[in-house]
Parts: sequence; C-alpha cells; structure tokens
Amino acid sequence: MKTNKHKIVIIGAGNVATQLGLALKKSKQTILQVYSKHQASSNNLAKLLKCEYTNAPGKINITADIYIIAVNDDAISTVVKQLKLNNKIVVHTSGSVEMELLKSASKNYGVFYPLQTFSKNNKTNFETIPICIEASNKATLTTLLLLAKSISSNVQKINSEQRKVIHLAAVFACNFSNHLYTIASTILTSTNLSLNILKPLIEETANKIKNNSPAEMQTGPAMRDDKKTMDKHLKMLSDKKEYQKLYKLMSKSIKDSNKEKKQ
Amino acid sequence: MKTNKHKIVIIGAGNVATQLGLALKKSKQTILQVYSKHQASSNNLAKLLKCEYTNAPGKINITADIYIIAVNDDAISTVVKQLKLNNKIVVHTSGSVEMELLKSASKNYGVFYPLQTFSKNNKTNFETIPICIEASNKATLTTLLLLAKSISSNVQKINSEQRKVIHLAAVFACNFSNHLYTIASTILTSTNLSLNILKPLIEETANKIKNNSPAEMQTGPAMRDDKKTMDKHLKMLSDKKEYQKLYKLMSKSIKDSNKEKKQ
Repeated sequence: MKTNKHKIVIIGAGNVATQLGLALKKSKQTILQVYSKHQASSNNLAKLLKCEYTNAPGKINITADIYIIAVNDDAISTVVKQLKLNNKIVVHTSGSVEMELLKSASKNYGVFYPLQTFSKNNKTNFETIPICIEASNKATLTTLLLLAKSISSNVQKINSEQRKVIHLAAVFACNFSNHLYTIASTILTSTNLSLNILKPLIEETANKIKNNSPAEMQTGPAMRDDKKTMDKHLKMLSDKKEYQKLYKLMSKSIKDSNKEKKQ
Repeated sequence: MKTNKHKIVIIGAGNVATQLGLALKKSKQTILQVYSKHQASSNNLAKLLKCEYTNAPGKINITADIYIIAVNDDAISTVVKQLKLNNKIVVHTSGSVEMELLKSASKNYGVFYPLQTFSKNNKTNFETIPICIEASNKATLTTLLLLAKSISSNVQKINSEQRKVIHLAAVFACNFSNHLYTIASTILTSTNLSLNILKPLIEETANKIKNNSPAEMQTGPAMRDDKKTMDKHLKMLSDKKEYQKLYKLMSKSIKDSNKEKKQ
C-alpha cells in the first residue's frame, strides 16, 4: 500500500501557501522547504512551518515528493519555467489556470484547488473545505486524493472544465456578494449609519441557503414586483449612477428568474 | 415606573407576524388576539400563541395596549382604514413604509422594524436581531423601546429617513446576494455540479465581514484587474447575456471602488 506521508516543498508564501502549509504540517506531512521570491514572507512562513526557506530558484530542494505552487495565477508560468522535477509531482492551487501549464516541469502534475477564501492571519479549518483534485495520470491522482483527504473530508475529483465553471460561479456567489456588502456599507455610511446594523441579516441570508435553494429563499421588492418601492430606491440612488444601474439589472434578473421558475 | 408588560393584538399571520408573536409570547407579553383576513393562517398562529383569532375587522379586540401590523407593505393602508384605536399604540413592521400612514388609526403610532429575514417554520432567535424603533411622540417611543428590549438586545432608535436607507442597503447586501447565489447555482447545475461545493465559501465570505470591512476583504479577478480571467469568464457566459452584463457591471464597480480606496 502506498504511504500517505510525503515530503513537500511549498512554493509561495501568501495566504493560500500559509494556510495550506499549516494544514499539511498539522496532518504530519513533512514540509521540507518554502520557496518564494519574497524573502521576508518566505522566511516568516518557514518559521511557522519549522522548515528551510530559499528565495533562489537554484536552491529549491530537489528531494521532495510533491511541489505545491501556491502563487498568484499570473506568476505560475514564471515559476514553472524555473522547475525541472522529472517524475516528482507538481501541482498548482488555482481555480482558473490550466493544468497543462505544469507539463514542462514534470510528467506527473495536477491541480490541488482548495475552494475557500484565505487570510494569512485567521487560521483556516480545512476539515470542511472542498478540495478539487485533477491529475495528469492515475497514480498522481491517487496520491493527490490521499494527500487532500489527509487535511479535508470534502475532497472531489474535478476536471478542468468543471473547475473553470466552479471558479466562475464562485466569482458571482462570493466576490460579487462581498462587493454588494461594500455597496451597502457605502450607502449606510452616507447617512451616518454603519454596516453593523445589517450584519445579522447578511449572516442569516448566507445561512438560509445551507438547507434551502436560494431561488426559494428570494425575497425583496424585485421578487414581489413592488414597483413603488423599486422606484423610491432608484430615486434615492440618483447621485450614484453605477449603483442605480446595478439595482436595475439585478432587479430585472430576479424578476426574470422568478418568471422562469413559474413556467 | 411604567410596566413593560402589555396586551397585544397581532395583525397578520405571515412570517413576521409568526416569529414576532412567538418572541413576544416567550418574553411574557400577553397576546390577546391574531387578526388576519386569511382564516386558516390566523387560526394556526392563534393556536401557536394560545390566543383568540378573528378574520372580521369588526371583531378586532379593542382592549389591547398595542396593535402590531405585520402584513405585506401593500396591505398596510387597507388594514389601517379598518382601525379606530383612539389612544392605543399602533405600529407597523415594515422597512420601507412611511410611519405617517398610521396616523388615521391613532395619535400614538410608530414603527417596530425587525431587521431580519424570516421563515414561518424556522424559529428565529430575536436576541441579536436589530429592532428599529420610531414613534410619533415620546411616550410611545419609550413604550416601544422597552417592548423591543424585552425580546432583543439590539434595539435602535431609527428615524424614517434612516430606515429607508437601511432598507435600500439591505436590498443590496441581502436580496441581491441571495440572487447571486441563485445565479451561481444555475451556472453550476448547467455542468452537473451543485451549489453544495460553494457553500463553505459562501459562508466564509459572509463570516469574514463580521470583523473586517468588506472593501478590505475584496478578492477576485476584478479586484486584481486580471483581464485574462475576466475575458475567459465573459466568453463562458456568451449564451447568458444577462449574466454577462451583470458580470461586467459588477467587475467595473469593484474596480472603481478599489480606485477610490487607493486615492
């Protein structure tokens, strides 16, 4: 039987690298080294993980089994050019970058995409985070699935096509929602109110869809086609043309979805 | 000192009426009666609250201290016309309806607006829900603040102007966010994936802003002005013109906010 303990090099020292490194260390994986071109942050992360660090591509430890590239999407191709790993496994952690980009570094490559938003400082509990796995061949897939299962109970085999769709859906559900919180905050502070008053409602809105379909949970003036309220709201936004446009488009989209649902 | 125990009539038998009735009963207020034109639901709610019910406006109990109108916004004016309450306190529970609409029913009127989204079946914990109070005079205000404090530790004096702003902000932060969850779900199911895979991320996105400003927490392709990813996403949405429009407008708004922040 294959062992599920590996020697790992982490490339990158940002939020994903930090949280993933901590989770892997906790599950008794051996982190050999952190490599990042940013000396200060790789040094910090190496201290956290109690391992070596380097900021010189020539000094990347070549004795590891698995190389995890957790850098910004745009930087992945640059990093890949610096790697010659023969048969070692190399993965990136991105939702939107092609797996094939890794081909030049090794014949055993894959994707290890944790579907969560990370901050460097708040420790992440990986246990429930979906990890999306893809690999260039069956043996690599088996190793990556096992590695992922050592830190999460929600590991899924996801191909490139599906991963792109998940990433797009995440932009809508998470990046855009967060921006709506920013807009709400801007609207409130313009009248000396604070976002605090909305936080219980925001929390409950996200909670409600745990066990219900969001379409069933939709409420508000657009949902009940309450033109009077929508007109009032648009008037209140008359000096914020961008918010007005968004209000109209979102309201139209809600009404259209509702019509489709009824058909 | 004024007592904080009151005799209450609840008008309406929907989600707000149900949850508010249950919370008031739990805090030992006396619910005399439920009045709703829908006999079945008023009967059900009256059973839950162990009180009388009626669906005849002429039979509304006139011995209560406080009348709480918890019906749809559009129905409030119809209900008000049926009420002649002299000096009794009458309130509505709406975020967007003028307080003055209640004037014809009593000289003591106000707003009792619980800032939360309610379902009839999931019992709501009122303890942390902000309740926004406004009143036509000081004595009524005092009574309503005390009544609200009997069920929530987050009671706020909010005037009509502020209430309208809060409601508008809630439409952005909650109604529109929920619709983004629906869009994400539609995108995922088109590839045989389910919204379940995004739920931990949605939850964390809402959680993160408890202790951070959402503008500081913004991530994603628009935030880092990652044109390549945004173009890919727009192409993926080519048969969903409405989502494409939304994607463009939200991304532009994120970029604009980010620029303003940096200035």
